[in-house]
Amino acid sequence: MSLDLVAAVDIGGTKVAAALVDGDGTVLARAQRPTPAREPAPRVLAAVTAVLTALTADPRWPRVGAVGIGSAGPVDARTGTVSPVNIPAWRDFPLVAGVRATTGALPVTLVGDGSAIAAGEHWRGAARGHDNALCMVVSTGVGGGLVLGGRLHSGPTGNAGHIGHISVDLDGDPCACGGRGCVERIASGTHIAAWAQASGWQPAPGTAPTAAAVAADARAGHPVARAAYDRSARALAAGIAATATLVELDVVVVGGGVSQAGDVLFTPLREALHTYAALPYVRGIEVVPAQLGTDAGLVGAAAVCHSGSDTFLIPGQAGN
Amino acid sequence: MSLDLVAAVDIGGTKVAAALVDGDGTVLARAQRPTPAREPAPRVLAAVTAVLTALTADPRWPRVGAVGIGSAGPVDARTGTVSPVNIPAWRDFPLVAGVRATTGALPVTLVGDGSAIAAGEHWRGAARGHDNALCMVVSTGVGGGLVLGGRLHSGPTGNAGHIGHISVDLDGDPCACGGRGCVERIASGTHIAAWAQASGWQPAPGTAPTAAAVAADARAGHPVARAAYDRSARALAAGIAATATLVELDVVVVGGGVSQAGDVLFTPLREALHTYAALPYVRGIEVVPAQLGTDAGLVGAAAVCHSGSDTFLIPGQAGN
Repeated sequence: MSLDLVAAVDIGGTKVAAALVDGDGTVLARAQRPTPAREPAPRVLAAVTAVLTALTADPRWPRVGAVGIGSAGPVDARTGTVSPVNIPAWRDFPLVAGVRATTGALPVTLVGDGSAIAAGEHWRGAARGHDNALCMVVSTGVGGGLVLGGRLHSGPTGNAGHIGHISVDLDGDPCACGGRGCVERIASGTHIAAWAQASGWQPAPGTAPTAAAVAADARAGHPVARAAYDRSARALAAGIAATATLVELDVVVVGGGVSQAGDVLFTPLREALHTYAALPYVRGIEVVPAQLGTDAGLVGAAAVCHSGSDTFLIPGQAGN
Repeated sequence: MSLDLVAAVDIGGTKVAAALVDGDGTVLARAQRPTPAREPAPRVLAAVTAVLTALTADPRWPRVGAVGIGSAGPVDARTGTVSPVNIPAWRDFPLVAGVRATTGALPVTLVGDGSAIAAGEHWRGAARGHDNALCMVVSTGVGGGLVLGGRLHSGPTGNAGHIGHISVDLDGDPCACGGRGCVERIASGTHIAAWAQASGWQPAPGTAPTAAAVAADARAGHPVARAAYDRSARALAAGIAATATLVELDVVVVGGGVSQAGDVLFTPLREALHTYAALPYVRGIEVVPAQLGTDAGLVGAAAVCHSGSDTFLIPGQAGN
């Protein structure tokens, strides 16, 4: 029996998931729990232990050769610790050690959730076949990860590709990260909805004032709702163009709840890219929707566990 | 006799230089000509041919094993062509073929000038010993190059690291590149001087209105002159912080004429980094002056010619 499976762990502010993933990126078994994000550190770890323990009961568990973790960040891959913004009790929390308590002697690899998603979309999703890709999640926040030269570039700490916290407006509004004018501060679903409301948009009676509600009204032609998405799209375009200018990209994959707005987001995003991606070598970057949905983090955590280094060969893609 | 030398070529809008460089990065011989930047394409190539021909007369020429070119960009390393903004007659100009006419069968590697400088500072200068570095030139323009994971990351076309043309002000002034609010549009020497003049600063009688003159007055306490450098420093800091957030950096090396302003630039730059580099993994990036001066491009062109790939092992740094 070969050790051909990996145990993938995806830790977010809402849910903790774990899965057995085979060499083709197929999820064979999974377990999931809500994240007790406001509880003390050991309670949060208990959720991780619970999903992993559920997997160890699977008859295929002995075939697992490694454990990959994608966690809400910031993370520190060098020390195996995490400090997720949305899990306040975890600060420099020794997550890798906590996971090892369940998984024993298996090698464990930790990266940030943006890098995990990029690894997943590159291995089995919309970035497949591209050597240089930015994969983004535009949701309540904005995150991302990078594939460069055919390999994940997660950086020494595992946080590289975090496009949500680059400034595209140096005199802009203060961001929760401490910066100013960050992409997330303008483009996230939270800020789309807040800007629309501040500019006079109101949701239909009985409807929550979400980015999805703004998108529905934008599709119906509401000018403020459209302007809210245009503004988000311009910030995303400036950030994407900056990334392409700095590292050179073949493709940009955009997922997350806000990307479900479809053309309301993608049309102005592609238009704004004409402005900000002006140099010859960055013109005409392809921007496509993500393909893996909520499984991207699990599939990507499986992809990264095949190496402990900050750049690795995506499994099954050797020589590509 | 071993083939232990390389022929390095540095092509800028002002001068064309070539050198024999040994395995320690020492320049053993050099030749230089003004760039006939406004003349027809063959005349510009003739200047390159002249400096290379001068080197071929050196008794050590038979020891040359490769040719490395760093050229003003944009370049296209895939096709061996260049389209330097400041050399209008060269558009998709086949520079590598033009060089081969003089250097024969030797392998030739082409990268943009920003990448060449980064390779040089990493091999023999201020980025030595750092695995993740951004090396910048702040002069009449703003350029740069990246070292990631101990290797040059010049990208498929050779232009990666071009921090001068990322937007840090998405509603900012139109840039010559076609974008808006680019780092160069705010931070370059040209724009420091223009902004100072537009804000009421005047050079001393008989003095040219240069960024150096603004720096001298800033050191003497002139408030507009100081504000001009503060503004440049903030744009540079936002760009550096964006780069660190995207790829993770250990060190940032800043060279070029504007960096000669010293504390007038570096003090507000380091202060502004506290604002824009806010996430834990980007806090406290070291920002240091360049060490190689005008030789960085030649030394870097020598470094890159040891591989034809877009990422390469810096010679003499194997295993670092």
